[in-house]
Amino acid sequence: MVETTIKKHNFSAGPAILPQSVFEEAAQAVLDFNGSGLSILEISHRSKNFDAVAIEAEALVRKIGGFDDSYAVLFLSGGASSQFFMAPMNLLGENEKAAYLDTGSWSSKAIKEAKLYGNVDVIASSKADNYTHIPKKFQVPDDAVYLHLTSNNTIFGTQYHEFPETKVPIIADMSSDMFSRPFDANKFGLIYAGAQKNLGPAGVTLVIVKKDWLGRTGRKLPSMLDYRTHVDGGSMYNTPPVFPIYVLMLTLRWLKNLGGLTAIEKHNQAKAKILYDEIDSNPLFKGTVAKEDRSLMNVCFLPVNPDHEALFLDACKKAEISGVKGHRSVGGFRASIYNAMPQDSVQLLVDVMQDFAVKHG
Amino acid sequence: MVETTIKKHNFSAGPAILPQSVFEEAAQAVLDFNGSGLSILEISHRSKNFDAVAIEAEALVRKIGGFDDSYAVLFLSGGASSQFFMAPMNLLGENEKAAYLDTGSWSSKAIKEAKLYGNVDVIASSKADNYTHIPKKFQVPDDAVYLHLTSNNTIFGTQYHEFPETKVPIIADMSSDMFSRPFDANKFGLIYAGAQKNLGPAGVTLVIVKKDWLGRTGRKLPSMLDYRTHVDGGSMYNTPPVFPIYVLMLTLRWLKNLGGLTAIEKHNQAKAKILYDEIDSNPLFKGTVAKEDRSLMNVCFLPVNPDHEALFLDACKKAEISGVKGHRSVGGFRASIYNAMPQDSVQLLVDVMQDFAVKHG
Repeated sequence: MVETTIKKHNFSAGPAILPQSVFEEAAQAVLDFNGSGLSILEISHRSKNFDAVAIEAEALVRKIGGFDDSYAVLFLSGGASSQFFMAPMNLLGENEKAAYLDTGSWSSKAIKEAKLYGNVDVIASSKADNYTHIPKKFQVPDDAVYLHLTSNNTIFGTQYHEFPETKVPIIADMSSDMFSRPFDANKFGLIYAGAQKNLGPAGVTLVIVKKDWLGRTGRKLPSMLDYRTHVDGGSMYNTPPVFPIYVLMLTLRWLKNLGGLTAIEKHNQAKAKILYDEIDSNPLFKGTVAKEDRSLMNVCFLPVNPDHEALFLDACKKAEISGVKGHRSVGGFRASIYNAMPQDSVQLLVDVMQDFAVKHG
Repeated sequence: MVETTIKKHNFSAGPAILPQSVFEEAAQAVLDFNGSGLSILEISHRSKNFDAVAIEAEALVRKIGGFDDSYAVLFLSGGASSQFFMAPMNLLGENEKAAYLDTGSWSSKAIKEAKLYGNVDVIASSKADNYTHIPKKFQVPDDAVYLHLTSNNTIFGTQYHEFPETKVPIIADMSSDMFSRPFDANKFGLIYAGAQKNLGPAGVTLVIVKKDWLGRTGRKLPSMLDYRTHVDGGSMYNTPPVFPIYVLMLTLRWLKNLGGLTAIEKHNQAKAKILYDEIDSNPLFKGTVAKEDRSLMNVCFLPVNPDHEALFLDACKKAEISGVKGHRSVGGFRASIYNAMPQDSVQLLVDVMQDFAVKHG
């Protein structure tokens, strides 16, 4: 009954590729979840079957990321875009100050929303250079409640390869590079990530927050917007997005079995290296950002000859490669090579680039 | 590869049963969406493939419900629980008054959240009677901005069979009976419904709002909480819950093909009748709510002999019937018989009740 056509190589920026085994397990669960005689789409979020999923998902986040019990692990909805306002709404008093680093569209949106709740000090920005690098010279004021940053910039293809040393907790939007490499959990007061890049499908947002940090502003909030509601309710104050959480759990199970963050970092570095090496050596293409800030997740590049843009996209299409058209803010091409992207697919893209250089060079 | 065990009869209150054909189409799309070579879980929400889904979903809502262009149709996340505060946050000025009808837990939560934003006048409540009926004698103040009600009370098993005549627009939480019967769209300024009963899986909330009503308070809101953001962005201001929206679209397509609201109402009335008739005639069971307010969606009943509770649940289990344990606020049993519940499954439950009366009467 279930048929599959030729599988495309999906370089989409997000929602994005997930492991093939996850698609297969998820499809099975839509028909019959764990031999229960029920679809994962019709089971109660308070059933034993789903409870086991939620418990395993949280345990996997803690195990993979190294988060101890001082952190709450929440599965919320509303996307990272809702965290742009929920973080300051919960953590920034109206007479207090927060430091923000501006490295692209998502940072800018986070800054805009934070201004509704307190004083926002944008301590560095690469906007003047169309966000082609990560700012390195800045001072985090000691009296800031937190430093907010976007760890990877999906649109512009830059990434922090080291997080700033600060005296204040960091709040990080890790939507597009969460669990793609090891990191020191203890630097962070709050981490949030829309699932639809490395973690699962669209519809669930992972939020990890230091519990003793909550309730500090005294602000009166609607129940659903107060992190404490979800901490107290174990992310089940209301009906959670059951299926997205299930697929996230499957994806994290895959990641753990692969060897966790150390193993996936090696895999991601290897994939990025062969692609950036090709960009740097192929005369028909050029990278768009400072080499030291290149993202291992979103590889942005341009054709040297603008007339080649449509031709190259066509060559990709013929090779069953999809999703490489660049974002309008940068143009050209963007190959998103998240955790689940196989090295063979990246090699295929490199082969197409080499072939293209032979034909059009 | 995909195997199914014996299918259970799912009387769960929500997340709840959906049509079997929807599960099959959804499972196929998780493996390969529309022959695209990509899973529905990995496609961009801005792709042509998903755009077609979003357009069809909106068209189906308008067609089935009779909503003209003066209404916006939004697919949001955060559940009905987020609408409890979003509705007053967007529509109730801080010196204005809104009228609320209190018919159960969900109404009470809506009332609690609304108090953060303006004056709340609870014009009638059945709380003193443990919500066993729908209040009928009340006056809606002419100076109220709106009247808020919960059209069906999932926990207590009551339902409005007629909506109040008012001079002010009605805001209705229709989470548990949306699209289960015809209704006059024009009475409503705002309708919201978590999908996970009649509309689809958990993870998407249908919101239908009169466009010219928005922006009336002048309150400054975070982008994600302002309905206008989602109206302007066509529910794609940020990444929407792609898969839940897809399954909702499939479910509405099924409903339309079945004949829409007139047809489903007949089907729902027939199912409820055989079950309530059995409750009223079987000496071992009794209903919990006023007959004229009985819900066609959630049928609550008690064993006359409390010792029979566990025995009857066991008899249900043996018949592959799941989800009939009552909510702790009412006890006993609750059979949720949403749109997708086949009449044969309801008949099976009735058979089990009759068999139980023979054995234990």
